[in-house]
Amino acid sequence: MKDHPLRKIMHPRSLAFYGASNNILKMGSILMANLLASDFQGSIYPVHLKEKQVMNLQAYPRAQEIPHPVDVAVLVLPTEVVPEALEDLGQAGIQRAVIISGGFGEIPGGEGGRLQKRLVEVAREHGIRFIGPNCIGIFSHDASLNTTPFGNAPGGKGIAFASQSGAFTCQTYELWRKLGASINQTISVGNEADLDLADCLEYLVEEDNVTSVCLYIESIRRPRQFIRAARRLVEAKPVTAIYVGGTEAGARASLSHTAAISGSEELYDGILRQAGIAKAKDVEELFDITWTLATLPPMKGDRVAVITNSGGPGASMAYQCEKAGLRVPSFSAALQDKLHSLLPPTAYCVNPVDITYALNLLLLRDIAQIIFESGEADAALIYGFFGKEFVSNLAKVFPDAIESFAGVQSDFFLTGVQEIALLPKQLGMPAAVLSFSGPESEPNRIIMRNGMPVFSSARRCARALVALRNRSRAMQ
Amino acid sequence: MKDHPLRKIMHPRSLAFYGASNNILKMGSILMANLLASDFQGSIYPVHLKEKQVMNLQAYPRAQEIPHPVDVAVLVLPTEVVPEALEDLGQAGIQRAVIISGGFGEIPGGEGGRLQKRLVEVAREHGIRFIGPNCIGIFSHDASLNTTPFGNAPGGKGIAFASQSGAFTCQTYELWRKLGASINQTISVGNEADLDLADCLEYLVEEDNVTSVCLYIESIRRPRQFIRAARRLVEAKPVTAIYVGGTEAGARASLSHTAAISGSEELYDGILRQAGIAKAKDVEELFDITWTLATLPPMKGDRVAVITNSGGPGASMAYQCEKAGLRVPSFSAALQDKLHSLLPPTAYCVNPVDITYALNLLLLRDIAQIIFESGEADAALIYGFFGKEFVSNLAKVFPDAIESFAGVQSDFFLTGVQEIALLPKQLGMPAAVLSFSGPESEPNRIIMRNGMPVFSSARRCARALVALRNRSRAMQ
Repeated sequence: MKDHPLRKIMHPRSLAFYGASNNILKMGSILMANLLASDFQGSIYPVHLKEKQVMNLQAYPRAQEIPHPVDVAVLVLPTEVVPEALEDLGQAGIQRAVIISGGFGEIPGGEGGRLQKRLVEVAREHGIRFIGPNCIGIFSHDASLNTTPFGNAPGGKGIAFASQSGAFTCQTYELWRKLGASINQTISVGNEADLDLADCLEYLVEEDNVTSVCLYIESIRRPRQFIRAARRLVEAKPVTAIYVGGTEAGARASLSHTAAISGSEELYDGILRQAGIAKAKDVEELFDITWTLATLPPMKGDRVAVITNSGGPGASMAYQCEKAGLRVPSFSAALQDKLHSLLPPTAYCVNPVDITYALNLLLLRDIAQIIFESGEADAALIYGFFGKEFVSNLAKVFPDAIESFAGVQSDFFLTGVQEIALLPKQLGMPAAVLSFSGPESEPNRIIMRNGMPVFSSARRCARALVALRNRSRAMQ
Repeated sequence: MKDHPLRKIMHPRSLAFYGASNNILKMGSILMANLLASDFQGSIYPVHLKEKQVMNLQAYPRAQEIPHPVDVAVLVLPTEVVPEALEDLGQAGIQRAVIISGGFGEIPGGEGGRLQKRLVEVAREHGIRFIGPNCIGIFSHDASLNTTPFGNAPGGKGIAFASQSGAFTCQTYELWRKLGASINQTISVGNEADLDLADCLEYLVEEDNVTSVCLYIESIRRPRQFIRAARRLVEAKPVTAIYVGGTEAGARASLSHTAAISGSEELYDGILRQAGIAKAKDVEELFDITWTLATLPPMKGDRVAVITNSGGPGASMAYQCEKAGLRVPSFSAALQDKLHSLLPPTAYCVNPVDITYALNLLLLRDIAQIIFESGEADAALIYGFFGKEFVSNLAKVFPDAIESFAGVQSDFFLTGVQEIALLPKQLGMPAAVLSFSGPESEPNRIIMRNGMPVFSSARRCARALVALRNRSRAMQ
């Protein structure tokens, strides 16, 4: 499948760009400027009927006059001229396109639907395969390519996001960044006049830098092909989805958005179940689960160790795990004794393990390892890292003494955090962190950078672990 | 109730502080340094057996020797000396205390329980009322007082948070800040040896700067008094709670945390229902709902107008509202015509209303007003504000042209955002915003500053509106 049509679209070496001019206030120009501002290393050939240069690049009146090979064309043109641009591409032998322009099948009645049919005819005639129309473009970390109007996603090996909503791909990059997630590709499929979600699933099987896939679904246009492609993909990597067409107004909105004919919630639950796709309740849960499945090792049973330095968060993690269907079993007397021997007398070692106020997180790491190696837990949830915010206020009062405190911090604390962050990779121990701060807190940044998820509620922690457990069970 | 014992504790003019020294690495010192770093305007009298000065303040060996009136004592002492310190307070005629020290009833078996009983005896003897022991302290915006080890909450008129978890009060300040919420008071009640959650509910009735109350509950020690106090408070202001004692491990953790005897989920659901308290699923929902109820006007029916510039977020908001039990009705032909006359031809006006790509948000404000005044919707959810992040990348390519774009931004865009933010107050229209960015985006900051909630998922928007609708119905 390395010759899948999406392969070249997501990894082009050269682009023709229709619809950019030297007027930055136009959407086409905004998109091309954004493309130039990203790190794409390939060639970009603007196509413009009148301008000789667009944004300091030589422009060509038609694709046929570009004297170099072109892998993919990006079109941000007025609706009515898109078919003839596609004709131009065909003549030039360019067979891959991303059609961002809207005004097609999603407009009820009249011209739009007719123009979309014409697109498909022209494409068939010339063997062109395309994404769109009415999409927001693509992001490809490996190709350093971003044709959306927004800044780059936090890129790397990790997640692919195929979506019937453009906004959900590029306008959520900040949400991904807060999660510490690493995005390999985003594909906004728009009206799916040619390539659709099923194609994305087929294509992603052999994308080695994609380890976890998520989908935003308003409608599945080819259910049989979708299920077949999903089952194949799910054998190789986890797939998670949200579906928003399952209510009356959701269906109405989907129809107006991408001409998508939705079905009942039950019907789609059935399709996703058959396809082996996990269903998330909303975009935050979609991202939480997708990132957890991208990064944590398998969870071989349903027993969670809850480790905390504070009672309330410990009780909350225990409660939410059990509410979500996991178990938080009391540890054996032997294990409790072992833990007690390392901890202060006021510590509680039954599970949750409450280490109480402690700066020495190397100890916390040892405790997690002892629990995991005891075989009495299959995963851990951890609470209790605070960054310099804990002492920053004090510096106003104790400018000197604070140095020694900061010294304690850097020697023990941050080293401890770093060691804890390595637990999943070193021990094969699935673990996530609860923190009410995000990446603005240094310990969280260290944890996230090492691929351990950090969530801001106990419920999110628990639901991510349930998804991991389900995935691990399915793959056993 | 202005003479409620908590009144003076939360609004003291002077404090005695037990347990701080000149060694910053001790918890007592950290807390007092944090107190000094906050803006407390009253007097602080350290009590220390040996030191003449603590952190440059004159220290006294016993409270009885402080030659000024003292409203409240804060105790961060080793467990075993707390009873005699309380005795000292009694001798000095100081009748209000916050006992932060732990090691009491929460430690199973042995000395802790006995010492806690002794505390209560000494307090009764001297007429002392106290919070704790085993709590993390209090935050009072009106008194500029913060006895917790963390930086100040985002303070103002708004929320009171009474909690059986100390961590959930002061360690979540950043979570509140991201929500744009304004906190008036936080009370960590600890083991509740004297004052408990029921007392907090009684006390908060007449706190005029508290408009919405939330609770973290592991156990309700006096159910009858709790329900009675809650029903009275709920007539004046909304109360929302999370309960984490309702599973086996949740109960076990609660017992070890604050010696709380939990009950089944069903029992507590019943208590909360009788009390008129809304129940949230987790801390994020608790905060979302509490802030929404603190700031939005009543929602008089269950019809939501969904307004967006992007299809996916619109479909998601419509779907989540219906899933949550609200309605997203199609607008009348007359209203649709009126909206169409203001919007580009590609706009969709049925509900969701998709205005498509538009920079003129003054128009968006007018559209929201027309919908609300039509009487066809009882609340609005809005998506589509982006800050300079939208154009920041372009500046790399178009350093000059970007100026004109930024000009468009400031003239239309931010003014429009400001106008939209005023909708709830000007029209009595409940409205919230969906944004995948937080307060790092300027439009969101403007919205939040004006008290309109901003949530990062459509589900959170919908669940907050449901809580508002329930509250409004109960108050009708």
